Amino acid sequence: MSEFSGDDAGGGEVDVADEKVSAKDTREVIMEATFRALAKRGYTDLRMRDIGDEMELTRQVIHYHFDGKNDLLASFLRYVAEQYEGSVEVDESADPWTELQARIDQCLFGPEFDEFGHWERMKVYHELFAHAQNDDRHREILDEHYDQIKQSIVDVVEDGMEEGVFREVDAELVGQLITDVIHVGRERRISLGHDDAPKETRRAIDEYILDSLVVDGGPE
Amino acid sequence: MSEFSGDDAGGGEVDVADEKVSAKDTREVIMEATFRALAKRGYTDLRMRDIGDEMELTRQVIHYHFDGKNDLLASFLRYVAEQYEGSVEVDESADPWTELQARIDQCLFGPEFDEFGHWERMKVYHELFAHAQNDDRHREILDEHYDQIKQSIVDVVEDGMEEGVFREVDAELVGQLITDVIHVGRERRISLGHDDAPKETRRAIDEYILDSLVVDGGPE
Repeated sequence: MSEFSGDDAGGGEVDVADEKVSAKDTREVIMEATFRALAKRGYTDLRMRDIGDEMELTRQVIHYHFDGKNDLLASFLRYVAEQYEGSVEVDESADPWTELQARIDQCLFGPEFDEFGHWERMKVYHELFAHAQNDDRHREILDEHYDQIKQSIVDVVEDGMEEGVFREVDAELVGQLITDVIHVGRERRISLGHDDAPKETRRAIDEYILDSLVVDGGPE
Repeated sequence: MSEFSGDDAGGGEVDVADEKVSAKDTREVIMEATFRALAKRGYTDLRMRDIGDEMELTRQVIHYHFDGKNDLLASFLRYVAEQYEGSVEVDESADPWTELQARIDQCLFGPEFDEFGHWERMKVYHELFAHAQNDDRHREILDEHYDQIKQSIVDVVEDGMEEGVFREVDAELVGQLITDVIHVGRERRISLGHDDAPKETRRAIDEYILDSLVVDGGPE
């Protein structure tokens, strides 16, 4: 209940009830609280104290670690990016088709989370994405993340071409297109409430984009 | 200046300096002022008085016509939708390929405006789009507009199939995909600052989506 009480106050550790929480865990607690607070109040109305209300740590911890709302949100965006980049599980030995499909599915439908699921997280992510036009630092982080997703798709397309399982295409352009289509499929679900948008998007990618990768013009 | 002075105060006309302004013009003046105010302040910080600051009419006119900020923004979204739907100029006698290309270009690169151009307008539109998740009425209007764009593309794809110039495809799915890709191409320019995104998107649509419409598997 007390703020920074105990011997280690102000250092890398903070007392919470009887538990010691490391700096790394503290960050995660604050970040997850930020997720919940943003989901409830949205970016527009978010106050630092809403984040405090979502966690068991004392609110002072936030002010100790972050220099205001924008600083916290920049760190939060990095956290979201890491969480999603770290979550893509692809078998190293998978062939390019299997890897490409797995990456698309992961981005569209998301990894499993114990609580506070993928779509609640994506709702928050897409709202911050829309606000990036007004904040250069946020924009830079999101741009980097977007580019990393694109690059992971470009890489597998290039692998496939090298192995001769994909037709020769402009890998950069195809990677960008697939990344864009994934993004907008999620967004259509979130902004317009089209619950089947991700599934529809998956089918459209298959039938009208990935078909361009098929060697020999495909069947028929 | 004075508020609702003159003989017709409260009616369909309002005195502004020496000029009479009809209800239709009044709406347009308020809507264009809303565009400018949103571009400057963003949705989050917008106050009714910011709109008032952007027009020569007295601010009371806004309160006379609209029941608060959300009501005004709903009307504004309808205005934007009409403006863009009305702007698509397609030659009635154009063949399906030409019409399809014209529609895609119009949506991606926008019609000409005398002042306050397409990208300034789109910046405002995309910000409101992101907020639609929190407002059912706004969502409904945007959803309808999005669907109209999609439908206009579906129609031309169906025409092309009927005439035998396009291959048999799932017109609904292709129309949705093209509409989605246009949307995200604009958004990437606005949110991430990728100035060449619309051009890149245009090329990707051509090479990797429209190629699916080519009869006979195309050249080579």
